[in-house]
Amino acid sequence: MLEELKEKVLSANLLLKELGLVCFTWGNVSGIDRQSNLVVIKPSGVHYDKLSLNNMVVVDMDGNIIEGGLRPSSDLATHLELYKKYQEIGGVVHTHSRYATSFAQCRKQITAFGTTHADYFYGDIPCTRALTKDEVEKEYEKNTGKVIIETLGDKDVMKVPAILVSNHGPFIWGLDSISAVMNAAYLEESARMAFNTLTLDGSTQMIDQYLLDKHYQRKHGKNAYYGQKEKK
Amino acid sequence: MLEELKEKVLSANLLLKELGLVCFTWGNVSGIDRQSNLVVIKPSGVHYDKLSLNNMVVVDMDGNIIEGGLRPSSDLATHLELYKKYQEIGGVVHTHSRYATSFAQCRKQITAFGTTHADYFYGDIPCTRALTKDEVEKEYEKNTGKVIIETLGDKDVMKVPAILVSNHGPFIWGLDSISAVMNAAYLEESARMAFNTLTLDGSTQMIDQYLLDKHYQRKHGKNAYYGQKEKK
Amino acid sequence: MLEELKEKVLSANLLLKELGLVCFTWGNVSGIDRQSNLVVIKPSGVHYDKLSLNNMVVVDMDGNIIEGGLRPSSDLATHLELYKKYQEIGGVVHTHSRYATSFAQCRKQITAFGTTHADYFYGDIPCTRALTKDEVEKEYEKNTGKVIIETLGDKDVMKVPAILVSNHGPFIWGLDSISAVMNAAYLEESARMAFNTLTLDGSTQMIDQYLLDKHYQRKHGKNAYYGQKEKK
Amino acid sequence: MLEELKEKVLSANLLLKELGLVCFTWGNVSGIDRQSNLVVIKPSGVHYDKLSLNNMVVVDMDGNIIEGGLRPSSDLATHLELYKKYQEIGGVVHTHSRYATSFAQCRKQITAFGTTHADYFYGDIPCTRALTKDEVEKEYEKNTGKVIIETLGDKDVMKVPAILVSNHGPFIWGLDSISAVMNAAYLEESARMAFNTLTLDGSTQMIDQYLLDKHYQRKHGKNAYYGQKEKK
Repeated sequence: MLEELKEKVLSANLLLKELGLVCFTWGNVSGIDRQSNLVVIKPSGVHYDKLSLNNMVVVDMDGNIIEGGLRPSSDLATHLELYKKYQEIGGVVHTHSRYATSFAQCRKQITAFGTTHADYFYGDIPCTRALTKDEVEKEYEKNTGKVIIETLGDKDVMKVPAILVSNHGPFIWGLDSISAVMNAAYLEESARMAFNTLTLDGSTQMIDQYLLDKHYQRKHGKNAYYGQKEKK
Repeated sequence: MLEELKEKVLSANLLLKELGLVCFTWGNVSGIDRQSNLVVIKPSGVHYDKLSLNNMVVVDMDGNIIEGGLRPSSDLATHLELYKKYQEIGGVVHTHSRYATSFAQCRKQITAFGTTHADYFYGDIPCTRALTKDEVEKEYEKNTGKVIIETLGDKDVMKVPAILVSNHGPFIWGLDSISAVMNAAYLEESARMAFNTLTLDGSTQMIDQYLLDKHYQRKHGKNAYYGQKEKK
Repeated sequence: MLEELKEKVLSANLLLKELGLVCFTWGNVSGIDRQSNLVVIKPSGVHYDKLSLNNMVVVDMDGNIIEGGLRPSSDLATHLELYKKYQEIGGVVHTHSRYATSFAQCRKQITAFGTTHADYFYGDIPCTRALTKDEVEKEYEKNTGKVIIETLGDKDVMKVPAILVSNHGPFIWGLDSISAVMNAAYLEESARMAFNTLTLDGSTQMIDQYLLDKHYQRKHGKNAYYGQKEKK
Repeated sequence: MLEELKEKVLSANLLLKELGLVCFTWGNVSGIDRQSNLVVIKPSGVHYDKLSLNNMVVVDMDGNIIEGGLRPSSDLATHLELYKKYQEIGGVVHTHSRYATSFAQCRKQITAFGTTHADYFYGDIPCTRALTKDEVEKEYEKNTGKVIIETLGDKDVMKVPAILVSNHGPFIWGLDSISAVMNAAYLEESARMAFNTLTLDGSTQMIDQYLLDKHYQRKHGKNAYYGQKEKK
């Protein structure tokens, strides 16, 4: 079942590794089929070179395993919260990529300092508040999803498709699992440059709003003119 | 048409990738044929492993497509401004290379701290002022070229063949597209060392003028003695 | 003799190199056979590409060579102290990995800033006091072991399987030599992120204790649910 | 002539590239034959993948070309000053390796912060004073050698086989050209860790003198016990 989605989610997990966004098993990608409301996700703790179509896990929206002999990623409940709340999300990624995670460890947002960031994220990458003791001890992964939603509120989540969870690391999403992984890559490169920028000058301000608008719109707006028409 | 130039510009784009100066599609190289006043440039948003002689775009000095089925790089208008103003430029490069871009995000020049920098750039790499709202909203890419020209003024642009555009990234040029790419590489390495230098000691001063003179001249002066005669 | 252990310790030494944790010959791994009380260790100063089953050194708990024609690693006496004191340790690693060593050079612990750290280390990675002149001049390597033990005291050493020796570098251990090497890798990545975190904000505090508990327990506790059951 | 020396110096130059110590053509290695007082050195500005036995340059102690059709490295006169002054030096290396050069750009010594440094360098790596205008304008490369000698004075140059030239970069030496290249690698790694150390804590002090003594002596002293006897 869901062979096409399983193939895509498998490719997305392998791409995550190929792009250098995970060490060891520190990351996971899922994708959703909105018609059946089923989610395909990486099995927990399995090395990327052992991944295959056969060990991808299919779960329903309550996290019940529908297909697959292995446990799903331990972060599954976070993915599910995001899919439930935001209908436009087709893929979710979690990584411990080095620079984005370093900002999360400081509980510091990644400010939009330049056009590289603005080409993919329409504004700063926010960082959630810390979870309370109670939220961590009971249904931790579900509450991680909830604090992400609390932070994002009613914003258009496709315009800034990433967030940092305090002291943990980034969650990233997209129209499907592959575009979510690409967004994870853009996030990490934006985080590296933001790290350099703040190291050079800790008082650096955000890019001018009109330059942010211009770059985001020339790639993602109605009248976008970056790239080739057939690729839009 | 312009087969030789197209081959060189293609090679230059591939070299940009090979030297690690671009992630994804974040860069472009062009070259000009001064006799016909035609420019060859990378197509917009096309991945480097998909580039071929067939998809390079040929445009005239007004940006009209003369040959090629794809849109030219969205930064074309910036390239054209530079070609129009500075007759000695044969190739133009734009990248988001990590360290040079980090300086641009701080709106900070790259000071000439050492002989590595002085071997290729006769002085600091300047950073433009920020563009105004109006300049960004109307003819943004053309105005990016204009603010570069405003910053460079009547300096000999071949002596410092690079500039940072505020909150955006570097533009680099050279006698042809290949030498422009090499200058982009020298810029990025100079930027990395300048980053380290300022991290170690934020009050570091520019190299002594006479040492800058010496290094630049022994490579580029009338009586240059670096390298082999036949290569001059 | 001890063919199986020699093979494992050889693999562990090669893995150390493969994971980028050693430059040149700057590291060594040993493993112990608790039944015979014999230790297998890398020969001193031999390059990783020259290592083979034949040149691994077998020593007893007093450091006498039982098998092998080469000198054991000069850090052997430190390994032996750890094996004698902590019966649960099956493998010991020493590296000069770049970020962990940089913290050691500052005599600075690696604070548990995030869940990446908490997934493997149940608290901060301590740094020993400096050795005295006398401790360095007489039985230096043995005293290095002793100051590690003095620092760890009666803590459960498997919960934080690493320490920094002042001005020197990390020692790391595990259930066997392979898991000790993996812990060395987790340490270095935690150290890199801690370096970034402190560079971004020098006043960053440790992760909340309850989040540390949660992450450590979901991987290592009685009711661990990370990974697959058969791998526990 | 000097085939054996030419082969060694060629290998040393290629090793410099392989170890990642040079970008482009930014480095050179020479070796001396003390019997004939002839020096073999890399040709100037030639790419490492074009180097061969045939294009190595043989010069006498006055810098006259004895064999070879290409110009010698422009830094030749610096190498010659070192060979003339210090009879125990058999090979000289110059690089623009990133971290050592960053310290040179700050005119800052590389303090001996740890045992990694102490294993190869018996104390801090000094940085020369800046050259005067006159010294730069007349016989610049020779004066670079002279200011190195002025800084080193009558120290045993084999105990700290490297120096930083202000605003320029490191010069490194050894018993022969290969060991000089290895020292260049140890220098760069020491510089990287010193950079990290100072970024973490700018007030970090030098390693205790007795620990420096111990590490240097266990590798290089009369009673050295690091490595294998047959390799001494």
